[in-house]
Amino acid sequence: MTALREAGVNVESVCGGHGVCKKCLVEVVSGELSEPTLAEAELEHISKSLRLACQTRVIGDAVVNVPQSSRQTRGKILEWGRIDESKLSPSIRLANVELERPSLRDQRSDSERLLHALNAEAIDYFLLKRLPSKLRDIDWKAEAVLYDCEVLDVRPQENRDVYGLAVDVGTTTVVAYLVNLKTGRIVATKSDYNGQIVHGDDVISRINYALKDYDKLVELQSRILATINKLVQEAVEGAGCSTSDVYEASFAGNTVMMSFLCGAETSAIASAPYVPPFRSSLRLKARDLGLKLNSSAVVYTLPLISGYVGGDVVADILVSGMHKRDENSLLIDLGTNGEVVLKSGNGTFAASTAAGPALEGAGLSNGMRGMEGAIESVSIDTKTYEVYYRTIGDKEPRGICGSGVVDSIACMLISGILDSKGRMVDLNIPRLVRVGEERAFVLADGEGGRKVYISQSDVRRFQLAKAAIFSACLLLLRMAGLSVRDLSRVYIAGAFGNYIDPRSAMTVGMIPELPSSKIVQIGNGSGYGAVMSLLSREAKEEAELVARTTKAIDLNAIREFQKEFIDATVFPHKRIELFPNAARAIEEKTPLVL
Amino acid sequence: MTALREAGVNVESVCGGHGVCKKCLVEVVSGELSEPTLAEAELEHISKSLRLACQTRVIGDAVVNVPQSSRQTRGKILEWGRIDESKLSPSIRLANVELERPSLRDQRSDSERLLHALNAEAIDYFLLKRLPSKLRDIDWKAEAVLYDCEVLDVRPQENRDVYGLAVDVGTTTVVAYLVNLKTGRIVATKSDYNGQIVHGDDVISRINYALKDYDKLVELQSRILATINKLVQEAVEGAGCSTSDVYEASFAGNTVMMSFLCGAETSAIASAPYVPPFRSSLRLKARDLGLKLNSSAVVYTLPLISGYVGGDVVADILVSGMHKRDENSLLIDLGTNGEVVLKSGNGTFAASTAAGPALEGAGLSNGMRGMEGAIESVSIDTKTYEVYYRTIGDKEPRGICGSGVVDSIACMLISGILDSKGRMVDLNIPRLVRVGEERAFVLADGEGGRKVYISQSDVRRFQLAKAAIFSACLLLLRMAGLSVRDLSRVYIAGAFGNYIDPRSAMTVGMIPELPSSKIVQIGNGSGYGAVMSLLSREAKEEAELVARTTKAIDLNAIREFQKEFIDATVFPHKRIELFPNAARAIEEKTPLVL
Repeated sequence: MTALREAGVNVESVCGGHGVCKKCLVEVVSGELSEPTLAEAELEHISKSLRLACQTRVIGDAVVNVPQSSRQTRGKILEWGRIDESKLSPSIRLANVELERPSLRDQRSDSERLLHALNAEAIDYFLLKRLPSKLRDIDWKAEAVLYDCEVLDVRPQENRDVYGLAVDVGTTTVVAYLVNLKTGRIVATKSDYNGQIVHGDDVISRINYALKDYDKLVELQSRILATINKLVQEAVEGAGCSTSDVYEASFAGNTVMMSFLCGAETSAIASAPYVPPFRSSLRLKARDLGLKLNSSAVVYTLPLISGYVGGDVVADILVSGMHKRDENSLLIDLGTNGEVVLKSGNGTFAASTAAGPALEGAGLSNGMRGMEGAIESVSIDTKTYEVYYRTIGDKEPRGICGSGVVDSIACMLISGILDSKGRMVDLNIPRLVRVGEERAFVLADGEGGRKVYISQSDVRRFQLAKAAIFSACLLLLRMAGLSVRDLSRVYIAGAFGNYIDPRSAMTVGMIPELPSSKIVQIGNGSGYGAVMSLLSREAKEEAELVARTTKAIDLNAIREFQKEFIDATVFPHKRIELFPNAARAIEEKTPLVL
Repeated sequence: MTALREAGVNVESVCGGHGVCKKCLVEVVSGELSEPTLAEAELEHISKSLRLACQTRVIGDAVVNVPQSSRQTRGKILEWGRIDESKLSPSIRLANVELERPSLRDQRSDSERLLHALNAEAIDYFLLKRLPSKLRDIDWKAEAVLYDCEVLDVRPQENRDVYGLAVDVGTTTVVAYLVNLKTGRIVATKSDYNGQIVHGDDVISRINYALKDYDKLVELQSRILATINKLVQEAVEGAGCSTSDVYEASFAGNTVMMSFLCGAETSAIASAPYVPPFRSSLRLKARDLGLKLNSSAVVYTLPLISGYVGGDVVADILVSGMHKRDENSLLIDLGTNGEVVLKSGNGTFAASTAAGPALEGAGLSNGMRGMEGAIESVSIDTKTYEVYYRTIGDKEPRGICGSGVVDSIACMLISGILDSKGRMVDLNIPRLVRVGEERAFVLADGEGGRKVYISQSDVRRFQLAKAAIFSACLLLLRMAGLSVRDLSRVYIAGAFGNYIDPRSAMTVGMIPELPSSKIVQIGNGSGYGAVMSLLSREAKEEAELVARTTKAIDLNAIREFQKEFIDATVFPHKRIELFPNAARAIEEKTPLVL
């Protein structure tokens, strides 16, 4: 582990090198290494070449392979969103131009002069108003900022950067990425809970609130805009630029969130036939929404698939690239609405399922967003019930975020604290306490001595979330006549989908059990898809194609859904043949290794 | 006169049938009539067939021709703006459509459904927001309101009318016409002084005010918008409709007024090379301007020709039709900025000249707009100095409007109260009084005993205005190698250009002296051109062509301008050969008859 870290390969570790968490698995290709320790005993019957980095000393030259699943995934976010600088083709482009000076012989208006010099077609109205002084202030030597064929700004030729804003508008969490459109790099990432949350955790409560009268819808719109404007402000401050340097904003989110963002009525989405106000992508002016960017900035919303399958799913698909690969694949977006996409030879199908906010750390006793002090990774010693955890920023624990919840439940299963029905077993250990009427398992002593725990009802909420997601996967597979084994790849997306440990997610039965080499964590696909659409006009075109060719499936219309959902609430599943390795790991009290 | 009135032909008359004002001239074609009276003596040497209607009794069957110049011109306004209902082709159109109801098999979004049914391309963003409830409220049976290919509204199929607003944005006066776009009829006309007038009478003062900082420009924009919003409110109340029934607004005005309306900087218009921020027509959303019409309404501005020749001139040309006739013609727009257009075989040339607000009744001792109580028509008995006048609405006189001023000055010249230099002659008559330091001629005892008069400095102001206009005419003619006699037609436009008596305008030397058959009064061409653009897409295209093919001439760049201007301040002109009949009329103390 030390050698790997010195080589710049950041390997996962929660238990601090005690051989408990099994997150530092590496594959030995060749070379001289120390003998396996007792902590590694369970690995032997899987593969001789698997070792725990924390237990293995390097004795001579050796070659080891660090699988993606053992790497600290935090960095992946940035990698995935990226496009080669050479392949950047943002809608926002810059053009240097020196205009001919007006004279008595050439009395063309300022706007004609500019359009002609740039071979552009239109000038944003807000720019038009200030164009005379802007052009004269820079003495006719302009760097023009264009959105396709519309001029948004003229600035001095100073090589100033231009920025775009990509926003994943989640029901629970909003993540904003500030992107340098010259370099293609994300220069700041800011997130917060969606300010609409005061009017309900899920989309249905908010639709009902908006139904009361149009003012309520306007209020919901103002709330999400306030959240976004705050994130923008933080992002530009972090990046040392100004909101006026931001010329485009791209939004991905579910259909209801996109409707609220635009202030469009959602009344018809909630009941059959679930009709949204719009599905196509919109191009608006940021100022029309009340977004505080450059006064001429353009807003783009990713196209939607249906009332319940939104632009976040389109973005996920875009980022995964699954639409371009000729193989059976599944995409799972873990969020308040869990979305599942199946691509097979028969087409691409998508379904949405109400998982609730538990996976985003909201609605749990000690749940919190993935911010400093959140327990994001957990491991439990199956013998001593000692808990190892890591918090974001290595701060004192303040709560648990989504990936920490999944880890906790998985470890509680492995260590026998939870049974397959999700009941906390009556063990006589100090960490099992009573909180009010119910049992709770204490993970840590947090800030100010406050205990951070998972309660029995937290587990219940989690069961509903994971059952919603897995039963959706299963139904789509069945519709296509496929089984889990037929999948070449499973993409995990979601605001916290990058941090989650897929082995924990399999242990609890949330995602299909497959070798970890087939699992690709794309992180916040919704946000990165929005980033891609900022960086490339082609990505926008692809998004249109994806939205047009993906068919939305209404799970509620499928008879078996209810039964499948109930079966999936069991850990890992009522039909353990779907999770043979997870079931064995739980039985053998040893972390799942795949 | 009685016979004519009974036949529905409203003949002009100011002196009340005393044979003084000579405004009721008719041409006898055949028939038996009474002998000419003394009042008609001067007509004989012009033509045997000319008679004054007020002096002529019909003895047997007779045929008389009433020239345009003798008709009460008030009605012409409405006639000129009109287009045959069959030829209406407004950008705003209505389409009845019944949409397929959504079902589980047809989950298209509301906007897709509507666009598909209408074969339209776009939905206004503000409509989009409310589309779901609007469509369901009308049970999918919609009357759609479209602007070209954009849907602006869906309404119940109730045959409700749709309206457009045409506005002449003058430097001094703003006139708003509410137009029923189904019938093509103007249903209300409202006017007021431009609210910007507190920051100066002329465009230069306002440009200087706007130059101070951008807030000042924003203030000027707010002021003109407040004026317009007030007029709109009055107009819809008058017509019994609502602002939400108004879907398009078309604006014509000079370049500076159009820039202020749009909030665009005017700094570069004021000095050489006089470059405006834009010249092409603009299409904006009314809400972006802050205009209180339907929330999805579209604003169209007529294209501009140059920094000093604006959309009002384009509109004038459009209304006159001079661009389509193969003859030499001159168009004179009488306003704060007098504009002159000359069309000849060598092309079309336009010039603007600062006449000041005198012709619009502003800036004179007793000047007022053409509203109730304004003296609009004047006649003076050359022997008794008795003054005959008519006020708008036949109310007690409150002041003098533009046409009344021109009549007054002409009559004061004819009756010898003014000399050719514009000096009030020292006559011992009760109507010649002193007001402060100067002489004044009293026209009437007005409301509350307040005298309505023309002062010496009013005359001076008027001289500058008429000289500005006539010298512009002369210079354009000279540029084209033409003389007054080469003109087939002279069009008189301007907010008060319909009410003016062309014979008075010739007597004072404001417009070229020509037979009145060659004079065509088109009224408020700027306003009617805007009306035409509302009623016909082709008119909008024509406007573009006119703007592109009319060349603006900068009079200040012509050497002789200053001298010509000074010569033209003389009544009727320093070179009396330009106004032989006017000069003789003045000398003979008899009204000009042509």
